[in-house]
Amino acid sequence: MPDVDRRPVALVGPVRIVGAGLLGASIGLALRARGIDVQLEDLDPANLRTASGLGAGVPVTGSEPEPQLVVVAVPPDHLARVIEGALEAHPQAFVTDVGSVKSGPLATVAEHADVARYCGSHPMAGTQHTGPLTASATLFEGRPWAVTPHATTSPVATQVVTELAELTGAMPLAFGPDEHDLAVARTSHVPHLMAALVAGRLADAPEGHLALSGPGVRDVTRVAGTDPGMWLQIVPANASAILALLGQIRADLDRLESAIESGDRDALRGVLANGVAGTRAIPGKHGGPVRPTSSVFVHVPDQPGNLARLFADVDAVGVNVEDVRIDHDPARAGGQVELVVDETRVEELASSLDARGWAVHQ
Amino acid sequence: MPDVDRRPVALVGPVRIVGAGLLGASIGLALRARGIDVQLEDLDPANLRTASGLGAGVPVTGSEPEPQLVVVAVPPDHLARVIEGALEAHPQAFVTDVGSVKSGPLATVAEHADVARYCGSHPMAGTQHTGPLTASATLFEGRPWAVTPHATTSPVATQVVTELAELTGAMPLAFGPDEHDLAVARTSHVPHLMAALVAGRLADAPEGHLALSGPGVRDVTRVAGTDPGMWLQIVPANASAILALLGQIRADLDRLESAIESGDRDALRGVLANGVAGTRAIPGKHGGPVRPTSSVFVHVPDQPGNLARLFADVDAVGVNVEDVRIDHDPARAGGQVELVVDETRVEELASSLDARGWAVHQ
Repeated sequence: MPDVDRRPVALVGPVRIVGAGLLGASIGLALRARGIDVQLEDLDPANLRTASGLGAGVPVTGSEPEPQLVVVAVPPDHLARVIEGALEAHPQAFVTDVGSVKSGPLATVAEHADVARYCGSHPMAGTQHTGPLTASATLFEGRPWAVTPHATTSPVATQVVTELAELTGAMPLAFGPDEHDLAVARTSHVPHLMAALVAGRLADAPEGHLALSGPGVRDVTRVAGTDPGMWLQIVPANASAILALLGQIRADLDRLESAIESGDRDALRGVLANGVAGTRAIPGKHGGPVRPTSSVFVHVPDQPGNLARLFADVDAVGVNVEDVRIDHDPARAGGQVELVVDETRVEELASSLDARGWAVHQ
Repeated sequence: MPDVDRRPVALVGPVRIVGAGLLGASIGLALRARGIDVQLEDLDPANLRTASGLGAGVPVTGSEPEPQLVVVAVPPDHLARVIEGALEAHPQAFVTDVGSVKSGPLATVAEHADVARYCGSHPMAGTQHTGPLTASATLFEGRPWAVTPHATTSPVATQVVTELAELTGAMPLAFGPDEHDLAVARTSHVPHLMAALVAGRLADAPEGHLALSGPGVRDVTRVAGTDPGMWLQIVPANASAILALLGQIRADLDRLESAIESGDRDALRGVLANGVAGTRAIPGKHGGPVRPTSSVFVHVPDQPGNLARLFADVDAVGVNVEDVRIDHDPARAGGQVELVVDETRVEELASSLDARGWAVHQ
């Protein structure tokens, strides 16, 4: 095993990316934009052609220099095998992966003699697409990227993977592998599964009932609309963390049901207040504390240019918009646009937009 | 009892609104904008002053003409009593209410000799506010408004309440009272409660775990951030419909847990696929079928004018935006703006915005 601690710390390349799908090709594009040589591998020649055609790197031929870092970007089921293969095929290289679950693959890889060269990671970015066709150098811009060294990861490996995250524009956050898996079970996997259960109750709704759907149910169920393919690999790979949280939700559901059955409003208040506290615990804008926001609703006729005019008017008022939602008007061609702004600016925005002729309410 | 079927069908007023909160005052403003006389009642003199000051109507003095229609807009706990009071105090008037649950109040009111003059209703509109200060004549613009005649409601009462919904700009939809309660349990009450359970698991997250929160968990939990006050009255009033659906979700949770425990991917796929089907069952834009959409993500530096410039550029491309979300960048001052557009236009929008200098990915 090489003495990894004497290597140069900076990530200079070449970087070999194994798996030229959305994440792999996007990492390639981001690194190429920083002038780093990228070598691409993929079992699917079409992915390889697309990714290299986009400029994400050069397909391997066997005559290229050895990589400084190998990034494994294959589906969850294949991570452990490909990480081990990379440690063996490139005995001088650091190795990372971008899988959604960290402890399962590590349990296999941990047996490997050179596991010190491996440091897992997980960029919190993705879309509903999976192939390289929609890859982008800016996919990771400003997103959290978990860097998950294990007990025997070399500090230099951790440093190089942290630099990988930084070079793509992401914000690296250090997590232990188990800690990471517990965190994403809570912030991603369980919310996804619960959204699927709520959406499942819509699938068999009686005729006409869903006409009363408002923005709330759309928000709650939105993530459940994504293709199940990747989730069928993620969920089993993080089964224990997910099952522990589902068990807690089941206990809360027990309390909720008995509160409703017995008409115990204090118990019901406890469940609802805990939910309010949870939404406030999510980090706010720019990672800072959550600042109180309030909404202004604007009726926008569904014609070209209206959204642009609205935002030009909002801009003229000088109020920063924290979030926007459009709720399409089921009755006519138009929508309600919800502008979420700092609570202290909401009156000013509403009256200014009203003065500019918009139909506004708060 | 008057012969209600010989009355004129048109809603011409006066309309008496009992409860000058957000909904009551907004109805008053919408009716005043159509030239209809509005009489306001509220136990709270401050609400009455605010609502009448906004132009939602005139506080009752005792010397006004008898109303053609009484609209009861009081909190759920007081609906039945106030509806009965209105039937008695105004023996010529039609009576409606705007409560979120219909069968409970009806069960009490049904004993009343003049119940034919009562037709329940429920506008699907509201905000996080409850008082009249943020009332608006456009609150109901384009929203569904359930009109819920019971077995002995006079057809003329149903007609007048339907006209009330139309005059506010809402889209009236006829539902039986029980049918309405089943529908809103599914599309509103149960999604709200499940969002509260997921959010509750965030409230006790270990330090640092929520830094990995992405747009998904924010969407799933957003509605759980609203004040529990009104929900403490709504949920008990629709207990049986809610409990039936929660029982079904519990059965689905059993299936989900055992699928994860046993590693049964086919069963897991079934749960996830049912969720996908549910999201697709929600009526799409303008009540039509759901059309496939896709997203373009744009990195927008957090400076005044950038959102306005983005929407001006989107407008110049000529692609209609179906939905917008802003995911604030935890690392720096900026955000990812997600533009949801017709799937067939997504490539054109992405390449056009890229050409205009925006950092874009799909």
